[in-house]
Order: sequence, then structure tokens, then C-alpha cells
Amino acid sequence: MFKHTTTYRVRYADTDQMQYMYYGAYARLYEIGRVESMRSLGCLYSRLEAEGFWMPVFEVHARYLKPAYYDDELQIETTIPVLPSTRIDFHYTIRRAGADEQVIHRASTQLVFLRSETGRPCRAPDLLLEALNPFFL
Amino acid sequence: MFKHTTTYRVRYADTDQMQYMYYGAYARLYEIGRVESMRSLGCLYSRLEAEGFWMPVFEVHARYLKPAYYDDELQIETTIPVLPSTRIDFHYTIRRAGADEQVIHRASTQLVFLRSETGRPCRAPDLLLEALNPFFL
Amino acid sequence: MFKHTTTYRVRYADTDQMQYMYYGAYARLYEIGRVESMRSLGCLYSRLEAEGFWMPVFEVHARYLKPAYYDDELQIETTIPVLPSTRIDFHYTIRRAGADEQVIHRASTQLVFLRSETGRPCRAPDLLLEALNPFFL
Amino acid sequence: MFKHTTTYRVRYADTDQMQYMYYGAYARLYEIGRVESMRSLGCLYSRLEAEGFWMPVFEVHARYLKPAYYDDELQIETTIPVLPSTRIDFHYTIRRAGADEQVIHRASTQLVFLRSETGRPCRAPDLLLEALNPFFL
Repeated sequence: MFKHTTTYRVRYADTDQMQYMYYGAYARLYEIGRVESMRSLGCLYSRLEAEGFWMPVFEVHARYLKPAYYDDELQIETTIPVLPSTRIDFHYTIRRAGADEQVIHRASTQLVFLRSETGRPCRAPDLLLEALNPFFL
Repeated sequence: MFKHTTTYRVRYADTDQMQYMYYGAYARLYEIGRVESMRSLGCLYSRLEAEGFWMPVFEVHARYLKPAYYDDELQIETTIPVLPSTRIDFHYTIRRAGADEQVIHRASTQLVFLRSETGRPCRAPDLLLEALNPFFL
Repeated sequence: MFKHTTTYRVRYADTDQMQYMYYGAYARLYEIGRVESMRSLGCLYSRLEAEGFWMPVFEVHARYLKPAYYDDELQIETTIPVLPSTRIDFHYTIRRAGADEQVIHRASTQLVFLRSETGRPCRAPDLLLEALNPFFL
Repeated sequence: MFKHTTTYRVRYADTDQMQYMYYGAYARLYEIGRVESMRSLGCLYSRLEAEGFWMPVFEVHARYLKPAYYDDELQIETTIPVLPSTRIDFHYTIRRAGADEQVIHRASTQLVFLRSETGRPCRAPDLLLEALNPFFL
């Protein structure tokens, strides 16, 4: 299993008139969790794209346990629970930073690997598999 | 069961550099599906808020079957499968308008009813229940 | 001068915790104004892109006179004040629909024409010039 | 004059199908520039709101000199050129981080101060004026 944590500051742009972070704004957080966890592995998503891979999202499952509020500093913990094949799962646990570090949100996404020239499914890029392998021995 | 259909035009603002509609942009479509289906019932969400109700989203489940592209006209079919209690489910089927009307996306959301003064869960507003009742006889 | 009006419903996604439409959400409205005014001329932006043109925004000037609120129906009046050359100006006047039709927002954008293969500036597409010509006789 | 610099990573959420950062996504950058420059002064926007102030945007002027691309690290330099009265100006210079630090975008926003209970214009909060005063001696 591979795990990585990054932070996100809730912006006015993210809030809605309930004073909650809008439910649709969390997709950006999952994206940040994915991309920064891959960056920490030395596997830039921009490099995968340059090598002809796309990783569109196929499935999202999200549970909004507590609201996030303006200017909250959130911790996004991203986990890759299994070595990817033609798909890759990411799990996200989002906490409000501070004394209690309360879990406010849990989500998972499944992405597929495609060759960008053809739009056809393919195996996970070697660059990513090699970076992840040590975590799944 | 209650069912309603509305349309949405994909905007440049919604696209990403894969030329897909960004996966996070679909939350707006579910919102439009919910709100316009309730409007068709004579039950404005803005009126529910004025009467002291909030309906935050508790759970989202989404499957991205095919991409949506710039300027696509999408049909958002919104279904309320069961009469709401302290929660309400909405199911969404999104099709690309045109000859084939291919289903490109399916999702469901569960929302909770809260009293906005207290933030406490409550039963569905009578206004909504009365509007929905005829569809569940 | 060419003028066109379309409408936009303010969504929860657009609101912020002041209960205003977020100031950054207006860019979508200008986009809708531009694209729908061009569609009314028979000049689809998607077709211009397919013919190798891009129209990135070079300059925006916006004045927020009154807030827009959730579920407001807004009228977006889009004007092309002069025949485009290598650039095109759009002016927007946004009103809250209803009895008074109060002007709540004014903005202008200047876009440039580029060839998408080269990224180089070019003259306005003939398709657009021909559609606009009758309005500037 | 007061000046502050912060950084922003361009996300997939920000891109459009030209592979540019969408022109409407820059509003978030100005917001980050404003709020982080105020935070550096010990003047949290969330605290101003808690004290009954709102700072809605009244005017935006933006020039898009070069595109920003996916995963670019941008430097947002925020300047407050004059001591605020009933309004406050922020100027933004956005550079692509790296060897050349090319300026890709310039913008300015004017915000007004309101009392949130009444919606009426007011003078800049003392907290902000006291924090800014040393920079304008």
C-alpha cells in the first residue's frame, strides 16, 4: 500500500451560500491528492501525458461526513491500495487540520489508463508501476 | 417514482486539456437535475431554504461511461426513486442529445434534510412530500 | 453593431458564502454570451475550432454593480460593437430578469484570433466576418 | 506600497481544451494573492468577516499576456499600491516559475468594504489599516 499526504486551503471560490465548501469542489481535492502523491513517487502526471497516456476518471464514490469551511486547512491523505493494472484506485481521507484532525470526508476514485492517440485502454505505464512496486512487496 | 429531464450545454469552462468535460464539472449537472426537477414539481429549492431547510449532499456515486465534449447538448434525466424521509435520493442518467442518445454517465446522490438554524437533521419538508406523494401511490 | 440576448440561471455552484454569485463565476457568463451570440449568427465556435482557429481571451474588464443571487435568472446581453480584425471585442450587460430588469454587471472582453497549429495571430475567420458584415453596413 | 508573493500550481481542473488555463480560472489566483498577502500582514480575511466586514469585488481588469499550462508553478505577486479608504486596490503580476520567470498575466481588482449586517459601504477595518500603515510612511 502506498500513502501520501498533502494540504489544501479552502478558498472563497470553493464556498457556497450554506457557507460549506460546495460538494462539487471536492473533485479538485482528489485531483491534487492523486497528482501530488504521484509527484512524490517521481512520476509526474504531465510526464505520463507527454509519453502518450491519459488517465480519465471512470468512477467516483464520495461521503461528506462533515462540512469544510472557508479558510480551513485540509489534509488530503491519498492511498493507492493495490498495484494498478489497466485501472488504478485512489482512496482519499480528508481531515480538518488542527487539534482533533477530524475526518470530514472519504472518497475513492477509479481511473483507467488510455493511449491518448487511440483512446484505447492499456496497461499502467511502466514508470508508475516501477515507482509503486516497492510499496507492494 | 418521479422522473424529469432537462438539458445542459457543455461550456469551455467545463472542458479540460484531454478535451473531455472535467470529471469535477458533473456535480453542477446533478445540481441542475435536482433543482429543475423540484422546480417542475412547484417546489423551489430557494423557497425551501427560505423556510429554514438545507439539503447538503451526503453521498455521491458516479460512473463516467463516455466523455462529454465541448458544446455537446446533454440530457439530464433525474429520478427520485423513493419517497424521501430524513434523506432523499436522486438518480441521474446523462445522455448526449442527438440521433443515438447514448448514455454517457450515471450517478446518484443522497442528500440529508437539515434545519438551517440548528444544523440538525429533520424530516423532508411537507411542501416537497406533498408534491411527490402523487408519484408514489 | 450586433446585439444578442440569452439567459442564465444562477446555480448553487456559483454562489459563495456572502450569498453572492462568486466574482470569478461571471467569466462563464461572458463565455455563454459570446458563444450563443455567435451561434445565433450561424457561426459555431466549435466549427471555428474545427477549421483551425482559436480565440483566446486577451483582456477582461468587469464592473460588479449589484450582486447576483442564487436562482436569479440573468439576462446576458452581448454586443459586438465593431467588425473584428485580428481581434474581437464583446461587451456584456447583465440584468436580473423581472419587473425592473436592473443592470447588475457590465463587462467587456477582447479576444485574439490564432491559428491553432502554429499559435500565430491571424485575421478573423471569413465565416464570422460574413455573418457579421450585414450588421455593420 | 505593500508587496507579497505566493505560488499556485495549475491543476487539470483549471485547464481547457486549448490546453490553456481557462481565462475564468484566474479569479481564484487573484483571491489567493489577496488573502495570502493579508494573512502575511496578520490580517485574516476570515477574521474581518467575523468582525462584520465584507469585501466584495467591484472591478476587475485583466490582461492575458501568455497562456498558463497544466502543472505550471505560478508566482502570484500581489501589490497594494495605496492605503485603502472605503475601497482597496490590489494589483497582481503572475509569472511562470523557472529560469526566465516570464510575466504571463497582469490584473487589478478593486474591492469595497461593506458592513455585512447592513450591506452598507464603510471605511477599511482598523485591523487592516494598522497592518498596512508601516508600508505607506
